[in-house]
Amino acid sequence: MTTLENYTLGRWAAGSGDQQELYDASTGEVIALAHPEGYDFASILDYGRRVGNPALRKLTFHERGRMLKALAFYLQERKEQFYELSYRSGATRADSWIDIEGGIGNLFANASLRRKFPDKPFYVEGEPVGLSKGGTFMAQHLLVPREGVAVHINAYNFPIWGMLEKIAVNLLAGMPAVVKPAVPTAYLTEAVVREIIKSGILPEGALQLVVGSGQGILDHVTYQDVVTFTGSAATGRKLRAHPRIIEEAVPFTMEADSLNAAVLGLDAKPGTPEFDLFVKEVRKEMTAKCGQKCTAIRRIIVPENLLEDVQIALGKALSQTTVGHPLAEGVRMGALAGREQAAILRDKVRRLAERTPIVYGDLDTVNILGQERGADATKGAFISPILLLNERPFEHLDSHEVEAFGPVATLMPYKDTAEAVRLTNMGRGSLVTSIATNSAEVAQEFVLGAATHHGRILVLNEEMAKESTGHGSPLPMLIHGGPGRAGGGQEMGGIRGVEHFMQRVALQGSPSMITAITEVYQPKAKQIEKDKHPFQHYFEELEIGQAYVTHKHTVTEADITNFAQVSGDNFYAHVDETSLEGTLFTGRVAHGYYILSKAAGMFVDPRKGPVLLNYGLDECRFTKPVYPGTTIGVTLTVKEKIGQEKRDETDVAKGIVRWLVEVTDQTGETVAVATILTMVKKKNQE
Amino acid sequence: MTTLENYTLGRWAAGSGDQQELYDASTGEVIALAHPEGYDFASILDYGRRVGNPALRKLTFHERGRMLKALAFYLQERKEQFYELSYRSGATRADSWIDIEGGIGNLFANASLRRKFPDKPFYVEGEPVGLSKGGTFMAQHLLVPREGVAVHINAYNFPIWGMLEKIAVNLLAGMPAVVKPAVPTAYLTEAVVREIIKSGILPEGALQLVVGSGQGILDHVTYQDVVTFTGSAATGRKLRAHPRIIEEAVPFTMEADSLNAAVLGLDAKPGTPEFDLFVKEVRKEMTAKCGQKCTAIRRIIVPENLLEDVQIALGKALSQTTVGHPLAEGVRMGALAGREQAAILRDKVRRLAERTPIVYGDLDTVNILGQERGADATKGAFISPILLLNERPFEHLDSHEVEAFGPVATLMPYKDTAEAVRLTNMGRGSLVTSIATNSAEVAQEFVLGAATHHGRILVLNEEMAKESTGHGSPLPMLIHGGPGRAGGGQEMGGIRGVEHFMQRVALQGSPSMITAITEVYQPKAKQIEKDKHPFQHYFEELEIGQAYVTHKHTVTEADITNFAQVSGDNFYAHVDETSLEGTLFTGRVAHGYYILSKAAGMFVDPRKGPVLLNYGLDECRFTKPVYPGTTIGVTLTVKEKIGQEKRDETDVAKGIVRWLVEVTDQTGETVAVATILTMVKKKNQE
Repeated sequence: MTTLENYTLGRWAAGSGDQQELYDASTGEVIALAHPEGYDFASILDYGRRVGNPALRKLTFHERGRMLKALAFYLQERKEQFYELSYRSGATRADSWIDIEGGIGNLFANASLRRKFPDKPFYVEGEPVGLSKGGTFMAQHLLVPREGVAVHINAYNFPIWGMLEKIAVNLLAGMPAVVKPAVPTAYLTEAVVREIIKSGILPEGALQLVVGSGQGILDHVTYQDVVTFTGSAATGRKLRAHPRIIEEAVPFTMEADSLNAAVLGLDAKPGTPEFDLFVKEVRKEMTAKCGQKCTAIRRIIVPENLLEDVQIALGKALSQTTVGHPLAEGVRMGALAGREQAAILRDKVRRLAERTPIVYGDLDTVNILGQERGADATKGAFISPILLLNERPFEHLDSHEVEAFGPVATLMPYKDTAEAVRLTNMGRGSLVTSIATNSAEVAQEFVLGAATHHGRILVLNEEMAKESTGHGSPLPMLIHGGPGRAGGGQEMGGIRGVEHFMQRVALQGSPSMITAITEVYQPKAKQIEKDKHPFQHYFEELEIGQAYVTHKHTVTEADITNFAQVSGDNFYAHVDETSLEGTLFTGRVAHGYYILSKAAGMFVDPRKGPVLLNYGLDECRFTKPVYPGTTIGVTLTVKEKIGQEKRDETDVAKGIVRWLVEVTDQTGETVAVATILTMVKKKNQE
Repeated sequence: MTTLENYTLGRWAAGSGDQQELYDASTGEVIALAHPEGYDFASILDYGRRVGNPALRKLTFHERGRMLKALAFYLQERKEQFYELSYRSGATRADSWIDIEGGIGNLFANASLRRKFPDKPFYVEGEPVGLSKGGTFMAQHLLVPREGVAVHINAYNFPIWGMLEKIAVNLLAGMPAVVKPAVPTAYLTEAVVREIIKSGILPEGALQLVVGSGQGILDHVTYQDVVTFTGSAATGRKLRAHPRIIEEAVPFTMEADSLNAAVLGLDAKPGTPEFDLFVKEVRKEMTAKCGQKCTAIRRIIVPENLLEDVQIALGKALSQTTVGHPLAEGVRMGALAGREQAAILRDKVRRLAERTPIVYGDLDTVNILGQERGADATKGAFISPILLLNERPFEHLDSHEVEAFGPVATLMPYKDTAEAVRLTNMGRGSLVTSIATNSAEVAQEFVLGAATHHGRILVLNEEMAKESTGHGSPLPMLIHGGPGRAGGGQEMGGIRGVEHFMQRVALQGSPSMITAITEVYQPKAKQIEKDKHPFQHYFEELEIGQAYVTHKHTVTEADITNFAQVSGDNFYAHVDETSLEGTLFTGRVAHGYYILSKAAGMFVDPRKGPVLLNYGLDECRFTKPVYPGTTIGVTLTVKEKIGQEKRDETDVAKGIVRWLVEVTDQTGETVAVATILTMVKKKNQE
């Protein structure tokens, strides 16, 4: 018998208080013990802030990302041991994949996300904001890691994914975490944290684990901390109203189970691929993880004339969902997490069935496989998939309000797409909804109508079906969360999620000062001139603001004609003097691409040097027509430097340099502006 | 005597209950009456949702923006009548400018912000997210206006700006508002709302006004509404914990007064421009609006060896702050909003002065000007500027905790920049801080350290001083709000602010479906071929996804040489076959700009047509080297259309078309990709 331990203040130790038994969901066997008490939360949070936070916040995003990548590989190599444990929670291999490999996938995805951030501990966000006519006063938004600790209070259904999807984000942001999993499946979280700590990849204090009760943890949070909660709406509301959360204005994100709907589009009649896809998706999202997913389908909204077709097709599909011990051959649905969860579920379904009858499944009996492995209908937490029918969904409102957290859903009819939107939105805020349709009109009407009530919407059709990750899968680069009943929170979503763990500040000052602070060159900031051409400097040698002012060139008609020849671009305004009436031009105008190409011809140093290649360009604008006789000059300025990681030992050490290119005419006015990207070799090739 | 009225449910009417008297801040005269009760908040909110919301949400961002612009012009023409009233609140002309023209400025700024949004009712946000290897499954984030009403509970210090800065944003987002100003200065808000309603510019239901008590208004908010609060932290905390806010997960933004600091940098010694700028700024931000600004400077943090210099210089500056009736000649500081506010302020200062003495000003006496206009030292709410001195700021903590909402600040010493950061952050979260320094090192250390505790940081130096809008001014394109004591909220900030009034949804599906829903072409979506070249179509005729596949071209050495000639770009990798050792190239490589220019030569239709000009390009990447012998082809696809407004009657009606340019080689691999922008004429020139 294992006694679960906490990892706090840099050491592993069991809690105190009466021990709690944790059960195998299929056999009812006791598999671990947990002690609910004995936490000094003030010290635990303080340890995270004092030890973990400074260690993480000084790392750059790239360093944090590489740390996540190393951790992902480390856990991936050890995943089988997590599967072994996961089966004990009633989860099949497929269910466990979501929890284990889905969780590790979040680490990988956030590791890659580092490339969207600078190789600095802070993040320069969005466009610079001009605040004055003369250009001497401007602003730039900046984000820095918050100084506190992220407190994650998690649900029992995804003990691994639930932790990893959250800490991947706070770690990338530069904040430490204290994770408090739900007790019934805390043995899985504990097993993963043991490996994480053993790996030594995270700095000390970056992750602490509290396996027992979290009672009192919020009494110590401050305005520099962040609290996230995943679980029931009732508990979430209590936490959100906690005096410390209110007094300190602690950022609080809640992600609660909701009554997610799946809609069959009006066009998706039997015989269409979308009809079949819909039935398949509903079955999957009713029964995966035995329906214990916060994104599971609870409401099935179908055209009224197809109600019977769907009921029959779905019944057929559900009848193939064999139930039993996750390790038994042929089992497609395992057990609920425990008997307590099963009892609550049965109560909810009985309430629902009062007015909307069960049309598939039986609440009290279920055939189970895997008795040879100890699966036990009375000691285990097995249940049959249950389908209810609500023929009057605008009257019988329980279907939109009572959440049965298991393989249970209610079928209901609608007349037109507007009605489907109304019914879907009667969930009063959900994490996700999906619609099976191949009609762009149906899809647009539904999406724009249901978007107010959902954090995610999936449009299911044949074109994407093979590669679709499905209705039920929150993805690291997409936001996860929904308004109202779903908790009003938002997590993940790539950069959007990282921002929750950072403080945004609007930084105002002169362009030179903003350049110095952000390490990104701002137009009108002071420029640095050096004796060598910047293309002769290695990556490390280039300074932000280092500039090169070219010689000048008077544009001729011959230039334009020759460029038309070489490029083949004979657009009328460049080559036909007789065509200009009614245009915006007063004469033959030089090609924008000529100006850009000529600018390159003027600023490039042709000699072989550290510049390896031209990688692309961003935000190029042609701001004034250039006619023959115009004299142009170019200023090339180092705007930003982004170091690159070597792919392997043999790779050239290099970085991307973003340059500001400003082309002006003889009056000093800008005729073109662009940001160009080059790859530049590092001096140090180690 | 005016009795203030509410504008609710489409009509003007006074409230009920005992009438409250509103006073002239300088003379004590009763200037208006308000009735605190008699509101049916359920109906008021419902009216906004039912009548105002549908009218606004169906407009495009551009239509909403033009509406704001019209409203801004309308109010600007009538501004003098607001000044006349504003003087009665104790505000000088300069103070009133902030409230009146600062407020109108917010309308103008948000009107211009429409250009960052599509000409559609919804907003396609951020980059598309690829979700599959084969490219048939992807996602895009989308924002739609929330279905409820924005409830704004405002403070007494900026009765006009406070309303306009908030409604400008919710109106641009497509949401209606109910505004509840603070009673003491509600006559100013009422006057502006009267003009707004009279203008008929906003659709009915877009704006309702409640001039009395807001007691009970939150009992009716739902998860589709948004609540904002500006005012005292104590009230804000009460509202944030309101059962409806908690239960419904109503987005709640709070912006509370904070103990903002100004820091004199170590380098800014007497005699430097920054020293003088600092003294001037502190004086201004202590006394503007009689110190009743949530962004006012409350703490003055200076190097310990300059404490005396600053105290003397500041005393001198403050002595020039003449106090009196706002309309009296020579007056630089008016009155507090009322005698009640003055009494609270005096209590706070007395508490502060127990351990940190007053070194400038007198709490009980003040010389006032303007008796001839009725200014009265006992009936009016005049006070002298007060400077306190805290020589031990790490011990006497009241300076960081007790906010005296008036022309009051405390001077305190620090040793090094790290200590300045610590002291600044001891405010436990502020709206803004500033530092006067001309040292990039000092500025960067301070900013990165203080950023965790502030919503805005201003770096003051000589370079920006002339154009600076100052420490105290929140600006529409910058976020306003701060962590902890400042309320943990964030408003304004351009697009960031608009997002508060919208629901974000992650939309998943096939590229074709996402294209149809978002009206932005997604790579790999189905393309539409037409018989005419797309450059021969008018703006209205072009369809999203409409594509043109060009002829092909085999690149030759002559092409490269000719391009080098025309552009002057003789970079070694293009022209010198002997230079390639150790580079990433296996032969002479074509210029990226050649590929781009040649692509244009291939996709452009040279005949005169509706395409007016090439406007620029975005996100161009050269993804594969092109060597002589490579055969390239181009696909040009309509990605997005953005209609433009005519500047005047004579302007050509046109729009910007964003095109996706994909250049592929004979193997089908992409060698370059870019988004180009052209200006295209409309068929309909009316």
